[in-house]
Amino acid sequence: MFAKEIYESRRAILKSKVQSGLILFLGNEEAGMNFKNNTYTFRQDSTFLYYTGLDKASLTFLIDVDNNQEILFGDNISIDDIVWFGPTPKLEEDAAKAGIIDVRPTKDLQNYLDKASNSGNTIHYLPPYRDEHILKLQQWLHISPKEAAAKPSVELIKAVVSMRSYKQPEEIVEIDKAVDISTEMHETFMKLTKPGLMESYVAGKLHGMALCAGGDLSYPIILTVNGETLHIHARHHEMKAGQLALCDAGAETPLHYAGDLTRTVPVNGKFTSLQKDMYNIVLDTQLKTIEACKPGTLFKDIHALAGETLLEGLKGFGIIKGDVKEAVANDVHTLFFQCGLGHMMGMDVHDMENLGEQYVGYTDTMKKIMTFGWKSLRLGKALEPGFVVTIEPGLYFIPSLIDEWKAENKLSQFVDYNELDKFRDFSGIRIEDDILITETGHRILGNTIAPKSVEEIESFMAN
Amino acid sequence: MFAKEIYESRRAILKSKVQSGLILFLGNEEAGMNFKNNTYTFRQDSTFLYYTGLDKASLTFLIDVDNNQEILFGDNISIDDIVWFGPTPKLEEDAAKAGIIDVRPTKDLQNYLDKASNSGNTIHYLPPYRDEHILKLQQWLHISPKEAAAKPSVELIKAVVSMRSYKQPEEIVEIDKAVDISTEMHETFMKLTKPGLMESYVAGKLHGMALCAGGDLSYPIILTVNGETLHIHARHHEMKAGQLALCDAGAETPLHYAGDLTRTVPVNGKFTSLQKDMYNIVLDTQLKTIEACKPGTLFKDIHALAGETLLEGLKGFGIIKGDVKEAVANDVHTLFFQCGLGHMMGMDVHDMENLGEQYVGYTDTMKKIMTFGWKSLRLGKALEPGFVVTIEPGLYFIPSLIDEWKAENKLSQFVDYNELDKFRDFSGIRIEDDILITETGHRILGNTIAPKSVEEIESFMAN
Repeated sequence: MFAKEIYESRRAILKSKVQSGLILFLGNEEAGMNFKNNTYTFRQDSTFLYYTGLDKASLTFLIDVDNNQEILFGDNISIDDIVWFGPTPKLEEDAAKAGIIDVRPTKDLQNYLDKASNSGNTIHYLPPYRDEHILKLQQWLHISPKEAAAKPSVELIKAVVSMRSYKQPEEIVEIDKAVDISTEMHETFMKLTKPGLMESYVAGKLHGMALCAGGDLSYPIILTVNGETLHIHARHHEMKAGQLALCDAGAETPLHYAGDLTRTVPVNGKFTSLQKDMYNIVLDTQLKTIEACKPGTLFKDIHALAGETLLEGLKGFGIIKGDVKEAVANDVHTLFFQCGLGHMMGMDVHDMENLGEQYVGYTDTMKKIMTFGWKSLRLGKALEPGFVVTIEPGLYFIPSLIDEWKAENKLSQFVDYNELDKFRDFSGIRIEDDILITETGHRILGNTIAPKSVEEIESFMAN
Repeated sequence: MFAKEIYESRRAILKSKVQSGLILFLGNEEAGMNFKNNTYTFRQDSTFLYYTGLDKASLTFLIDVDNNQEILFGDNISIDDIVWFGPTPKLEEDAAKAGIIDVRPTKDLQNYLDKASNSGNTIHYLPPYRDEHILKLQQWLHISPKEAAAKPSVELIKAVVSMRSYKQPEEIVEIDKAVDISTEMHETFMKLTKPGLMESYVAGKLHGMALCAGGDLSYPIILTVNGETLHIHARHHEMKAGQLALCDAGAETPLHYAGDLTRTVPVNGKFTSLQKDMYNIVLDTQLKTIEACKPGTLFKDIHALAGETLLEGLKGFGIIKGDVKEAVANDVHTLFFQCGLGHMMGMDVHDMENLGEQYVGYTDTMKKIMTFGWKSLRLGKALEPGFVVTIEPGLYFIPSLIDEWKAENKLSQFVDYNELDKFRDFSGIRIEDDILITETGHRILGNTIAPKSVEEIESFMAN
């Protein structure tokens, strides 16, 4: 937990932004896997953590803005529970560490909400993303599951986004730590990877490292010889010489700040000439787009720059022809680069994704584009100091997508499908780092950067 | 997945047991951690796996007993999804591997259920244990969340328990594998453990091993120097010389069969004289109770035998006096042994716990005892060939519980509280193995048994 004053100050600012009504923060519950008491690792809701720091299940936090009250609803454990779970600090002690004095049993919550609701007070809540949230809202606010999902408070969403988007110094320290653990994971990925190993084996080692550091993963590891599949979670392939292995993995610190890195390396430690050339297109794109990160620049323009740089590189293979700016304007890049260049990162790896990408990554006057490719760009608006973003360009040769475009002869003024066909089984490459936007430009997060150039990777894997 | 015939045969037997109505099996969904798309590792419902073998999210399986129909409801992925998740086998192909031919889109399910319901057919379902189950039942069966939880089919529960309780040869093979991986984890626990290491570090290594083997953990690891806390999940202590470290950890195979082992070792590799004597009481108890496992014996009698053996041992310390059989009849053992001696194990580590302990561990004529200690015994009924159970006696010195009993001078004809006070900070010891009940007796599962005697452990930790 951070110092008490940090949470107190965050709540004071929030109250000044949401000027009336009640703010209802649902803390998360333990989640059963195959039966109720066999639970997944508990993960608190990030916004709940942001305003209270309380990392325990079954809590609800209520801010009554009109009456300037802050109440934590939750229950202390019984002697029976102490036998099973050991002596734990009283809820009142935990709450006091966050400057919350008023602690009441959960059974008092319904009455409080009913009273407020009957007096015509607005009850602000954030978009539910777990079924437990839906069931609670259904019960507490007397609304249907459909209504619960449809009626989050836009005012509250905007207030939270306007705060969590700007990382405080304590948060940057945590993210640096998360990136450092993630970097060690990627170095281990490079040291371990060799022909004959299962993807799942290497992924298991990396996951173990995140756990050994006292936290966990910030998202499920992608570790695959099929890098062209963007969110592949299957890890049942044996890795073979000649293949590229793509690893997208990051750790979360005990305070729940994320790292998110990707590296792509040759399974046998040495790039083929073709792999090297393709890799350098992506690396060139990553370096250029990182360089473009500074306050005031629209992230969607940096995304477009990535598209142009990738297509420019593919011209060298004869796959692309014509003017690359014009090609990107026609969405040609989405044949090879279907996802976004990056996203906000913080306590959530896709920071605040549950609050809605329109609110987090765009503005009232800049709507998210919903066409293929662009719809996967989670961030479009101008960068500002304090933002933390990922920069993760990639080249993905997806046979089914190539076939689809080719069948339509789509945008053939820019694409040579005969040349492209030669590369249909190339797989995919992605390179990703985490970037802090500073007053004057940017800083790559983490104290060290995992090997990234062809030479660095080959030399690292050789030792 | 096992061979198709296994699933076909299981379903045929189930239909013969549940003679009419519809059987509705809810497959599990992906579960979001801190936002919807950042998911925990997918875990399918075990009963769903038992009858279909299908290890994918968002499926529903319906057996219409009266019309002898078996229908899988689910949706194939779109071209948009293929970009993100790669080419996957069609649902029809997967279903065919389990002998299920009739596959329909999820949107057709509501109509099917409404029709059946309107014709007065019973819709059998198992007890919901995830909030997603509640929401589905609420929508599909037009009942409230409370009703959904209250109205599972006892007939279906009993039918499923009457099948899953008897492990088939293929299942034993899987459990043997799970125990072998678990044994390796415990050997690593012993090799790694030393003063100065964090509990979380060692636990992270063991978790990584389960993942490296291609599966995962079968339950969250308990790894603690506070072994007296039965289900402690905090792992933030630095281990110190002189302490005992208790590790309760098991792997789950890719086919989702569990292992569940516990070992307790001295952090610095050498038991003190007191630790050795206490340890040998628990070991003696474990060996005796394993020996007692055979068809026809009531598990609650073996639990009582554990209580007696533990108390007999404590007599040697002057903590216990009087007749141990009489003491156990008075629940004296629950001061040191608050949990059950063991439980069924299979696809779930506490097998079928979600179906209700009364149905799994007891009988129509043997009700579960609900007093302190006994209420935590998940299994009481007679053992039968094919059952897989854990045997996990322990001694737990819980200061708050000792204080509570001492304040009441409770059962002081059996307990010398002055003597006991000297051991209040001893912590706890548990030793656990997994046992198959055979036609003639039992077999300890796994190809090797992790070091268990004082001599074995000390010698193993020294090397």
